[in-house]
Amino acid sequence: MNELTILISCPDQVGLVTNITCVLASHQLNIIAMREFVDEANKAFFTRIACTGEFEETDKLKQKLLENLPNAAVVNLITQKEKQVAVLVTKEYHCLAEILIKNQFKTLGANVQCVIGNYEELRNFTEKMGIPYFHVSHLEKDKPQFEAEIKEILNQFELDYLVLAKFMRILSADFVESYSGKIINIHHSFLPAFIGANPYKQAFERGVKIIGATAHFVTDNLDEGPIITQHTAHVDHNFGVKEMVRAGKEVEKAVLLEALELLFEDRIFVSGNKTIIFK
Amino acid sequence: MNELTILISCPDQVGLVTNITCVLASHQLNIIAMREFVDEANKAFFTRIACTGEFEETDKLKQKLLENLPNAAVVNLITQKEKQVAVLVTKEYHCLAEILIKNQFKTLGANVQCVIGNYEELRNFTEKMGIPYFHVSHLEKDKPQFEAEIKEILNQFELDYLVLAKFMRILSADFVESYSGKIINIHHSFLPAFIGANPYKQAFERGVKIIGATAHFVTDNLDEGPIITQHTAHVDHNFGVKEMVRAGKEVEKAVLLEALELLFEDRIFVSGNKTIIFK
Amino acid sequence: MNELTILISCPDQVGLVTNITCVLASHQLNIIAMREFVDEANKAFFTRIACTGEFEETDKLKQKLLENLPNAAVVNLITQKEKQVAVLVTKEYHCLAEILIKNQFKTLGANVQCVIGNYEELRNFTEKMGIPYFHVSHLEKDKPQFEAEIKEILNQFELDYLVLAKFMRILSADFVESYSGKIINIHHSFLPAFIGANPYKQAFERGVKIIGATAHFVTDNLDEGPIITQHTAHVDHNFGVKEMVRAGKEVEKAVLLEALELLFEDRIFVSGNKTIIFK
Amino acid sequence: MNELTILISCPDQVGLVTNITCVLASHQLNIIAMREFVDEANKAFFTRIACTGEFEETDKLKQKLLENLPNAAVVNLITQKEKQVAVLVTKEYHCLAEILIKNQFKTLGANVQCVIGNYEELRNFTEKMGIPYFHVSHLEKDKPQFEAEIKEILNQFELDYLVLAKFMRILSADFVESYSGKIINIHHSFLPAFIGANPYKQAFERGVKIIGATAHFVTDNLDEGPIITQHTAHVDHNFGVKEMVRAGKEVEKAVLLEALELLFEDRIFVSGNKTIIFK
Repeated sequence: MNELTILISCPDQVGLVTNITCVLASHQLNIIAMREFVDEANKAFFTRIACTGEFEETDKLKQKLLENLPNAAVVNLITQKEKQVAVLVTKEYHCLAEILIKNQFKTLGANVQCVIGNYEELRNFTEKMGIPYFHVSHLEKDKPQFEAEIKEILNQFELDYLVLAKFMRILSADFVESYSGKIINIHHSFLPAFIGANPYKQAFERGVKIIGATAHFVTDNLDEGPIITQHTAHVDHNFGVKEMVRAGKEVEKAVLLEALELLFEDRIFVSGNKTIIFK
Repeated sequence: MNELTILISCPDQVGLVTNITCVLASHQLNIIAMREFVDEANKAFFTRIACTGEFEETDKLKQKLLENLPNAAVVNLITQKEKQVAVLVTKEYHCLAEILIKNQFKTLGANVQCVIGNYEELRNFTEKMGIPYFHVSHLEKDKPQFEAEIKEILNQFELDYLVLAKFMRILSADFVESYSGKIINIHHSFLPAFIGANPYKQAFERGVKIIGATAHFVTDNLDEGPIITQHTAHVDHNFGVKEMVRAGKEVEKAVLLEALELLFEDRIFVSGNKTIIFK
Repeated sequence: MNELTILISCPDQVGLVTNITCVLASHQLNIIAMREFVDEANKAFFTRIACTGEFEETDKLKQKLLENLPNAAVVNLITQKEKQVAVLVTKEYHCLAEILIKNQFKTLGANVQCVIGNYEELRNFTEKMGIPYFHVSHLEKDKPQFEAEIKEILNQFELDYLVLAKFMRILSADFVESYSGKIINIHHSFLPAFIGANPYKQAFERGVKIIGATAHFVTDNLDEGPIITQHTAHVDHNFGVKEMVRAGKEVEKAVLLEALELLFEDRIFVSGNKTIIFK
Repeated sequence: MNELTILISCPDQVGLVTNITCVLASHQLNIIAMREFVDEANKAFFTRIACTGEFEETDKLKQKLLENLPNAAVVNLITQKEKQVAVLVTKEYHCLAEILIKNQFKTLGANVQCVIGNYEELRNFTEKMGIPYFHVSHLEKDKPQFEAEIKEILNQFELDYLVLAKFMRILSADFVESYSGKIINIHHSFLPAFIGANPYKQAFERGVKIIGATAHFVTDNLDEGPIITQHTAHVDHNFGVKEMVRAGKEVEKAVLLEALELLFEDRIFVSGNKTIIFK
């Protein structure tokens, strides 16, 4: 008996659940968990089904499902769960360390293939954790050149996702396009507050009582991609910028790791600039 | 087009979702939301389905569902959502007020039929909110007599649920039995910590850094019924018993009202001493 | 023995705490709680001292404190704690009800003198709670006229604070100026996100995973006054605008009531566009 | 200019703050932050004062403070903040990794001198982080022998604190006595709920909706020491024991690291079985 995760999105219409479950039954698949959502505004249907059974021929199953669904349906059958990822960093260690520790102790739900940094600061730690570290400086070169060098490294690996773990360079629309839907970023504010640079300084100057962080898919609009997870933490007048940054790092790593867990377990649909997440 | 909520629990077996959805399709019902859970330990299946359609004859639909489910299946079809409730209180106003305010402004999701108190303190407020108040003192009578008087009042109404909103008398197993699965209590601690009397005093003496509250179904074991909702709040050394009580009241009313919302929307299954809640 | 709360703000310099405590000792006052904060950026010192003792002549004590502090010092001696407030509302009941319930049961820490609404919706409930309700419509008149009518009512009372409990009209700079530092508003978003109208709609369209609320002092820049309290709550793809509004109301009332408690206990200093809060 | 942290506890009496601040002023010390607390039940006074100034001779300052305080006063002057710690572990990595990562990147506020484990599982990781790992098996020896071996290792270092980072052996009263007030433990439940073994299994069987963790000082009563920090996380019917353990680990490490930060910054007083924490 194997486990199979089925992700389906399509225009909403009457009878979808019945159609899908009948196909699964006809293949002797047993549903162990099923979640669905109808986006009423966009008349769209989303479902995630975990099932068990024998299914050597997932192609046939997929074909059968497509035959019983509206034309625009997207069907994704996932039989293995271990994702392959690259991590991009600058100088801050806290998100990278959390990822590499979980990777080391096999609780990340993914394999980190490499770390790419635009500085050397995190090489030592990364290599101690047994992961190859590639230094690609952004200095003295233009963005296309910088990104070409990164891509050359990424191309050496078969990757499902790129994780920007406090990578402080803005990626071009072209680069983002090449990895469409595969780049996850941690932004150090609760978007849409404090878009752009230095959010903790902005937060300090505004005198807010909460700070936060946002994990999101990267699109070509800076800080505008579909949001996956957000959390906040309370601060008070005793927090200067430095203390906000320190408290914020704890939120950032929690938010990013929660997003990665959902991602690696195939629980996230992207629909326009929003996410649908079946926890 | 009407809305129908279907609750089903039964022993787990292969094909349940398919069987159920096929019956619904054959009745031209459209599933708008569906949640299911398999309790692997007890091999039990639970589902809550919200659907729309024409269904004058829910009896036939229920019959058809039962025919397609294992013998021990329980099927509950709910076409109207407004529940009728009685509230039992002692002297503290905070939970009662929250309930009666929402009742007054039609956002409770239920109708409060009456309030019964073993003191007179809350009569004035209750009556201002337009709800009949019945005083049943527990003094100078034994528990069977006390409970008989309460029952006599309750019997004047058609009630779905009794809400113990800081009702500080312990109900007998007999009384609880008469309203099995229909009594909800708010306990002023995060169970199972601080079972029994004066939990805030216990919390203060232990020097805890969080206090909490628990909404649960009442069974004949005091404070042992299936838990619906729990929340906690942080306290510190500045909190004496009085300050803990004050902070605790805010938690209590939030926890109780959240539980009532889930209850009145038919989102809760009870299974043994646990709840399964489809939020 | 009486209780006295002392609030002092002044330019920071060496020896302030010693100077202050020596004056208190010379008046036989016993310090039971003391909090202080130095705003290093602005070289400003703030302290809140709760003490007990005999002090018929607070004028002399104030004089003595001022003599021992830098020139620009502001000293505030508070011997009674019950504040007098007016509440301004539009149509939503949730914040007003929370305030009037606590007022009714004497746990607000203030007396509500009157409620002013630009609609009639909340008259009935307000009057049941024993508080005078004044209807001042904003229709068919200009803002100066509208505000003049409100002021005429407010002038009938001796008021410490005006609470905007979901009052949906923007007050003019002139009006705000007349009650400088005395107007508290609840804004239905975690500022500075979603400034302006319809924040829940903005939140829904952006696909955020948290919503929030902000209580703040009102200044003549809309939504830009010093922030007192903020909280957030998690939402997900199941939340439409309606559900966000509903969940948001619970956050709004919690945030506003927490701010009022701090305010009525004289725990808040305003410094520029920020607050310093001694919890 | 140096920084000095002063911790004082003594029986409460009138004039303590004045006495203390006058001594500090006479030594030209500038108070930059001061917190105090009066435990009314036990008539005890606690203060933490951060000040700056010149103070080669802290002995004289301490003497002067003692002369101006009640007989039983305890005065602690702390001029350097870096604490030296040993970490005791069993097999679980999550708390240890968090500590060693922060140690590695110099954000722990302490130096980890060594790790002692009763299994070999965590040696590899510890040594990669550059910290000596000592294996002391508890097998085939009695507790006095086991603890003697641990002590022999600890004696090689000058240690301020022992951190039990999921160390799953119960220490004897004798051992605890030797490091009185210096041992911190992370317990995997929100005490006092689920004292003892296997709290997540207990939590699962009780059907709770929150799990938690507690960091506390170790005394000779198991799980009864003064509590430093506690947090909770929500769980639901989808959580089996395994999922509760997984979610719990995130809470455990957050709770422990928060406690260590407070400890290493000298913010905690122990008074009886409680803590007073000046955040």
